[in-house]
Amino acid sequence: VTGPRGYRIHVGTAGIKDDTRDLLIVETTPAAVAGVFTRSRFAGPSIGLSRATVAAGRSRGLVVVSKNANVANGPAGVADAEELQALAAGVIGADADSVVVASTGVIGRRYPMERVRAYFSPLRWPAVADGGFDDAAQAIMTTDTHPKIATATVGGSTLVGIAKGVGMIEPDMATLLTFFFTDAVIDPAALDAMLRRVVATTFNALSIDTDTSTSDSAVIWANGLAGPVDLDAFEAAFGGVALALVKMIAADGEGASKLIEVRVTGARDTASAKLVAKAIVNSPLVKTAVHGADPNWGRLAMAVGKCSDETDIDPDGVVLSIGGIELYPSPADETTLALAAEHMAGDEVVLGAELGVGDGAFTAWGCDLTEGYIRINADYTT
Amino acid sequence: VTGPRGYRIHVGTAGIKDDTRDLLIVETTPAAVAGVFTRSRFAGPSIGLSRATVAAGRSRGLVVVSKNANVANGPAGVADAEELQALAAGVIGADADSVVVASTGVIGRRYPMERVRAYFSPLRWPAVADGGFDDAAQAIMTTDTHPKIATATVGGSTLVGIAKGVGMIEPDMATLLTFFFTDAVIDPAALDAMLRRVVATTFNALSIDTDTSTSDSAVIWANGLAGPVDLDAFEAAFGGVALALVKMIAADGEGASKLIEVRVTGARDTASAKLVAKAIVNSPLVKTAVHGADPNWGRLAMAVGKCSDETDIDPDGVVLSIGGIELYPSPADETTLALAAEHMAGDEVVLGAELGVGDGAFTAWGCDLTEGYIRINADYTT
Repeated sequence: VTGPRGYRIHVGTAGIKDDTRDLLIVETTPAAVAGVFTRSRFAGPSIGLSRATVAAGRSRGLVVVSKNANVANGPAGVADAEELQALAAGVIGADADSVVVASTGVIGRRYPMERVRAYFSPLRWPAVADGGFDDAAQAIMTTDTHPKIATATVGGSTLVGIAKGVGMIEPDMATLLTFFFTDAVIDPAALDAMLRRVVATTFNALSIDTDTSTSDSAVIWANGLAGPVDLDAFEAAFGGVALALVKMIAADGEGASKLIEVRVTGARDTASAKLVAKAIVNSPLVKTAVHGADPNWGRLAMAVGKCSDETDIDPDGVVLSIGGIELYPSPADETTLALAAEHMAGDEVVLGAELGVGDGAFTAWGCDLTEGYIRINADYTT
Repeated sequence: VTGPRGYRIHVGTAGIKDDTRDLLIVETTPAAVAGVFTRSRFAGPSIGLSRATVAAGRSRGLVVVSKNANVANGPAGVADAEELQALAAGVIGADADSVVVASTGVIGRRYPMERVRAYFSPLRWPAVADGGFDDAAQAIMTTDTHPKIATATVGGSTLVGIAKGVGMIEPDMATLLTFFFTDAVIDPAALDAMLRRVVATTFNALSIDTDTSTSDSAVIWANGLAGPVDLDAFEAAFGGVALALVKMIAADGEGASKLIEVRVTGARDTASAKLVAKAIVNSPLVKTAVHGADPNWGRLAMAVGKCSDETDIDPDGVVLSIGGIELYPSPADETTLALAAEHMAGDEVVLGAELGVGDGAFTAWGCDLTEGYIRINADYTT
């Protein structure tokens, strides 16, 4: 991946948890920045530091630790996060509060700070700026099975996005970690508004397991080295890059074997459509039916039905489909069920619910629920 | 189980799905009745008929089909439900609208009505009133591995409760199916109020898999043959019987190996405590950690944290425990983690979250998430 101009990258292994890559530093020429973060009440101290940096609208870069979330460690954890931010800022020659901090991994364990200090001590910039964005995408993985990266060009500018995350994922403001870097000129206010619009229909439409992380962060930097671009064209490209990352995350969900796309149409409004789409994509009975390629459309009816506060939904007006094949109210028969089962045997399963109320629509993404999810999560810390 | 006076029971096999027991009729002398039902927008026609019966406050009995939900079958399904109600009422010699109807099983398939009519045709009452409440509890099972029944005596009266359900269970008004029969004198209005209070802290505190059924029904009959009782004592006994059934259902959750009890205290109010308790008991990451007997208390922090609208929760005021052993904020160490793991190796796991805000409390019940749940649900209809 050829990235945008003005960014320098370092990846390495500080020994946070084991001997795999666990540290990323990205430096940029002074850039506009915007970010959205988890709404968790147990948000980690990295989130607090990054919120302050993003609020200022300008940033010099990013430091990420990918094998320890540094969450629920009290005042000591806050001090560790501040020290990490200062160490990274020192290496790239920037003010500490201009560096965004992100951290994911196990909750409730402190960083091994002696190792962190020993790692940072000999680093000299830009001598160690040794990697590309592919390396960056790889360095931020925790239990991901492969890196997630997507790119686009708009006018003379380039946009690259990276993301990580396979579990504890129902982002409320953003996904576990996703970062976007561009050399387009976009001022902080426009960048912030654009990020929120893009996240609303991409990362906030994703759920692996209904569990919102304490570390979710989505941040975009725009350092302007490529000059101005058409903002509408840029936003469209940004949306495409974000959606590509969302689909990669859903397909790589813990234990997942299939990507699920839920298309809800005909709702009263977008909020109602989103509520129903999330109810379907999060239903363990729907997720296991997809895993078994079982065209049990009754579970779609159940999931729509449990949105009991959406009192304008009348079963008589609802149309349910799998892979575009209508199964309700047209009575499902052997032929339609066989076609639906064939669609479900593929890697990407599309579930549809037309509610027959208005023109609100929302599409959500998730994955099937498998024995693999159980195995991965039944003994994560031990 | 010796039941209350005045009830007669018939169980049998009408061939609804296969050759297992699938039909239950309970007749009572004219009784006060109260019921609560699913709020699903896809509630089946049995629910509509039963709501009408319960609204009248008086009932002569119950008919249950346990291998087919008769949901999402359109006008034909409504006609089938009405015919079933009339057939059962004819057998016991009652008005059709005095009989409560309940039905569970697969969604979207019609009853085999020829077989149903052939089954009812030769039945003569009370000659076929051939069973006890143990048989009734057994006859209403779908995928349950064992019947659920509990009983209590209050003054001269007896109360017996039966229930079924192992999946698609996060009751909104009641659980999949639960029925209570007593010979105490309780008027319909008092019975209704009592039922709602009892259900609020028992069945509505239960979640197997967050999926609210289209068929949930909880109904109590009181035929008065034992005369008046102390209503407070009766309500306490009723709560105990309901709680016993809830624990049986949670422990028998699809694929479950452990019962989970989540005790939330120190919340702003009961609603806030319930929201947090449900977030914990429904978290797939908490459920898999319990399955693995893994004292990963960080997942409790995550689940509390994702209740992001409960803005009065401050991590500094929260205390998290497993089996009564505090793991946060007192730093968990090898000794406390080992004790927590030992507790989690048992059949009943108690998770605690003290929020440090007010005195609202709520206890919820559920079960662990296992490979068995995936296997059972990946191919239910096929």
